[in-house]
Amino acid sequence: MVKDSYLVGLIGAGIGPSLSPELHEREADRQGLRYLYRLIDIDALGVGPEAVGDLMRAARDLGFDGLNITHPCKQLVIEHLDALAPQAEALGAVNTVVFDGGRAVGHNTDVTGFAASFARGLPDAPLERVVQLGAGGAGAAVAHAMLTLGAGHVTVVDALPDRSADLAASLNRHFGAGRAAAAGPERLAALLGDADGIVHATPTGMAAHPGLPLPGELLHPGLWVAEVVYRPLETELLRAARGVGCAVLDGGGMAVFQAADAFRLFTGREPDASRMLADIAELAGVTGAAGATGVRS
Amino acid sequence: MVKDSYLVGLIGAGIGPSLSPELHEREADRQGLRYLYRLIDIDALGVGPEAVGDLMRAARDLGFDGLNITHPCKQLVIEHLDALAPQAEALGAVNTVVFDGGRAVGHNTDVTGFAASFARGLPDAPLERVVQLGAGGAGAAVAHAMLTLGAGHVTVVDALPDRSADLAASLNRHFGAGRAAAAGPERLAALLGDADGIVHATPTGMAAHPGLPLPGELLHPGLWVAEVVYRPLETELLRAARGVGCAVLDGGGMAVFQAADAFRLFTGREPDASRMLADIAELAGVTGAAGATGVRS
Repeated sequence: MVKDSYLVGLIGAGIGPSLSPELHEREADRQGLRYLYRLIDIDALGVGPEAVGDLMRAARDLGFDGLNITHPCKQLVIEHLDALAPQAEALGAVNTVVFDGGRAVGHNTDVTGFAASFARGLPDAPLERVVQLGAGGAGAAVAHAMLTLGAGHVTVVDALPDRSADLAASLNRHFGAGRAAAAGPERLAALLGDADGIVHATPTGMAAHPGLPLPGELLHPGLWVAEVVYRPLETELLRAARGVGCAVLDGGGMAVFQAADAFRLFTGREPDASRMLADIAELAGVTGAAGATGVRS
Repeated sequence: MVKDSYLVGLIGAGIGPSLSPELHEREADRQGLRYLYRLIDIDALGVGPEAVGDLMRAARDLGFDGLNITHPCKQLVIEHLDALAPQAEALGAVNTVVFDGGRAVGHNTDVTGFAASFARGLPDAPLERVVQLGAGGAGAAVAHAMLTLGAGHVTVVDALPDRSADLAASLNRHFGAGRAAAAGPERLAALLGDADGIVHATPTGMAAHPGLPLPGELLHPGLWVAEVVYRPLETELLRAARGVGCAVLDGGGMAVFQAADAFRLFTGREPDASRMLADIAELAGVTGAAGATGVRS
């Protein structure tokens, strides 16, 4: 009998360190599937983010079953799709494309993945005033997730004023007026003074983009800090936040739950997220479990 | 530990019934490799044979390790390659492309595959006067194989006079003047009267191209008939040839040995051809083994 086989991949920039291939392939192996996850790095190919459309169509023609899409292509890919799942359409960002009989359908598993990870890792966190750094594709997803989880108000901070304003306007449309606002980085000090927590959703802290996404002296013990970056699990931001006593959530849980949701879309099979959480703890180091509860000193 | 993984495929027209995915994947599974073999059918994609260059470059960019190439692209692909193995260059036909550090290198495993199959299936066949039908990519390969095996003279018959003349000239350059000649189909009756055997190397008899490649009344018991088509194993030509008492060789052995050679090029690992012969007998039906010795009535 022929094994069910799946060919998928990830399009993005600087994705060499991604753990997605291992997360997907390990779960597929446990389910007895023939499953191959390829990294398609636009930097390595020497093409720009706008190549995502051609790469996606080529992948469909060459027999891929679906793709994950990451920075900086999550928004650019939309114009090349045949259809959008309602959530992806609301977000204006796509991280998962499924090829369905020649049609390319866009989904977003970042929002469900982040919500599941937050509810699990910071279950008692106050959510009245949330400051979010980053209004790109991942930023749109996690802001939707935070408001879905019941956050009272989210202020979106981005160095690009149009981008943060667009996201805040979209959030207010979807969740009700007054739930979101935009601000520039110069207002961070004032915003963080009485905020409950920070969601970090820029690429800063990834292996290819080292550094802190905000001045370290703005961190204080009254904040929780939730990270989207998962490679490395221990970003400079999480290290600094732990240093001042913040409860923190690393990006490993989001990485697992978004991967699990994509796996389900690609294969129609139910992944075992608990086994995948054990995988990422092994693959990305021991900070995974401890980081989720902020107990590391 | 990450399993070694290989992504390969086949570009051609009407390749849906190809057994190559199963042949490669079964052997890879026995060797513990993650191995996925995708069919890239230009008919299904609605593109012409000249798309092979774009498809090949896209496959390289998307993480394929190599490709097999079949009708009608084996010659068209050459201008898109960065380098050719000496045998592929002599043949003027490529059935295997290996991506090596961004470079696309062309090989031809049809000639070695056919030679191995012929030597095994028709070991005592007289080779003084051979008539070959078809002067395309597979035709060039098997004519090289027959002359390498020691055939005295090969007459290449093709409906396209330029194509058969070009192949005969190329064979005479590589194997010595007077070893090959070209002829049109109208000379088949005269040629077959005193020939030792027929090599059939056109697509006729494939699932997508049913029929006999020559008038059935030209077959006589003094001929052996060797087939290149392997899907189905039992072509109309082999059935007719058996009917008049010819020793016959089906295309299964060539399919296995060309696949084994491609597997070695893609992976650097030694395949077990005997296990692969058992696979094709199972996959393509019981005519495989009997057909190789001509004992089926």
